[in-house]
Amino acid sequence: MAYADNGGVKVYYDDYGQGLPIVFLHPWTTNGYIWYFQIFPFARTNRVIAVDHRGHGRSDKPKSGYSIQEHASDVRAVLDAAKIDKAVLVGNSIGGMIAMQFALDFPERVTGLAIVSSGTGLGEGMPKEAVEAFKKDYEGTFGALLEGTVSARTRRERPEILEVMKAHFTVQSNFPRHVFDSAIADPNGVFNWNIKSRLGSIRKPTVVFAGEEDQGTPVAANKLLADNIPGAKLSVIKDVGHFYQLEKTIEFNAALKEFVGSLR
Amino acid sequence: MAYADNGGVKVYYDDYGQGLPIVFLHPWTTNGYIWYFQIFPFARTNRVIAVDHRGHGRSDKPKSGYSIQEHASDVRAVLDAAKIDKAVLVGNSIGGMIAMQFALDFPERVTGLAIVSSGTGLGEGMPKEAVEAFKKDYEGTFGALLEGTVSARTRRERPEILEVMKAHFTVQSNFPRHVFDSAIADPNGVFNWNIKSRLGSIRKPTVVFAGEEDQGTPVAANKLLADNIPGAKLSVIKDVGHFYQLEKTIEFNAALKEFVGSLR
Repeated sequence: MAYADNGGVKVYYDDYGQGLPIVFLHPWTTNGYIWYFQIFPFARTNRVIAVDHRGHGRSDKPKSGYSIQEHASDVRAVLDAAKIDKAVLVGNSIGGMIAMQFALDFPERVTGLAIVSSGTGLGEGMPKEAVEAFKKDYEGTFGALLEGTVSARTRRERPEILEVMKAHFTVQSNFPRHVFDSAIADPNGVFNWNIKSRLGSIRKPTVVFAGEEDQGTPVAANKLLADNIPGAKLSVIKDVGHFYQLEKTIEFNAALKEFVGSLR
Repeated sequence: MAYADNGGVKVYYDDYGQGLPIVFLHPWTTNGYIWYFQIFPFARTNRVIAVDHRGHGRSDKPKSGYSIQEHASDVRAVLDAAKIDKAVLVGNSIGGMIAMQFALDFPERVTGLAIVSSGTGLGEGMPKEAVEAFKKDYEGTFGALLEGTVSARTRRERPEILEVMKAHFTVQSNFPRHVFDSAIADPNGVFNWNIKSRLGSIRKPTVVFAGEEDQGTPVAANKLLADNIPGAKLSVIKDVGHFYQLEKTIEFNAALKEFVGSLR
């Protein structure tokens, strides 16, 4: 492990293996542990970096600075610290947003993008009451939202996935409340960030994986990405919600391996 | 995260949550990531520490010093660094050995022991040819050994568990070859360490979880522990091999929660 310094904010990353670099970017409120079943299998053949975004896990948690652009700038700081010229970015949810923003801001450092259950302009259709509910009862509202992020099969056969998702965001030392507040208020934070009009400028090999049962970032939100990123391929996965890498790990690893292989 | 310093060797640990401390100790060749589905759920109610043993993951990897006693001394250094007086130790495989050694060396710092698929004197019955095979074809031999560490159900339904186990030990930056060589040669290393005659001196509440299909540390090896640690309870788990925490996560978390609750 190591830390990158981005203007005084320390960003944690794991760094294993050698070969074509792959950078894993986790969903909001989680941390790099979510990629356990990818980090070590892929480190057999690739250099694997798994970042904890600022405000999460083992990284610094400043009072503010939670725009997607700032997160993308942290990824650049990680690549600089790790002396990596360019990498495949694999981003789930907010991690996918960060990957897309990174591809706009630093295209010369991107080999390809694998977007897993993500979107842009997510807060657009969100009623004001939903935002108010969030502020009033953060744990209850976010916990309820998470219920819709796993498939029926995952809920039945892998209840620990929902359990860990419901845990990350309530553990203050992993994801403190001020990070939540600052991110939702930020004009370019997780809900407000919107690059719909700029998706056409992402000109890197891209695959978008959408979970058929994901109610967090539904298939339509992911289709919008694939439809507007030139040449992007959409892959809709049965029996999966928001967390393809955990809900159908072996299938995800095979699909990612195939994508990475196509970039050589 | 933080590092403890034990005589110049830096030992990595994660540190989340507040409450009665629980220290998680991982199996040989893996690292603290194996406890992903425990760290965050338990951090809601407990202080959770997850250590990377020396020679593994994010900790230092000195040329030698891989006796179980040295590993136990690292755990003491972690508790000191984290300013934790005493803790429940949860150890899987070599992690269980380290927990038992710790209970012998530092009994005043132990609240209770949860031993998950472990044993003592594991190398006793091992034929010389097996040791030679290890030295000759480390990857092949250890890989074959791992095949027998998951249950038939895990192999069928959760193939990613075997995949990640087969990955950790081949990623040099996670578990370098010299750690393997030093540990198997050490008179108190993973295979040679033997406290059979001292098990009766462990006088802390203890539960031993054995996977019914574990061929690495079979039920008999775990029964020996439970039979000889005064008052220890043995729990044999169906459809589980060596990795209860991954193979039946929800059941493991419930059983551990019950054990930890009994210690209050």
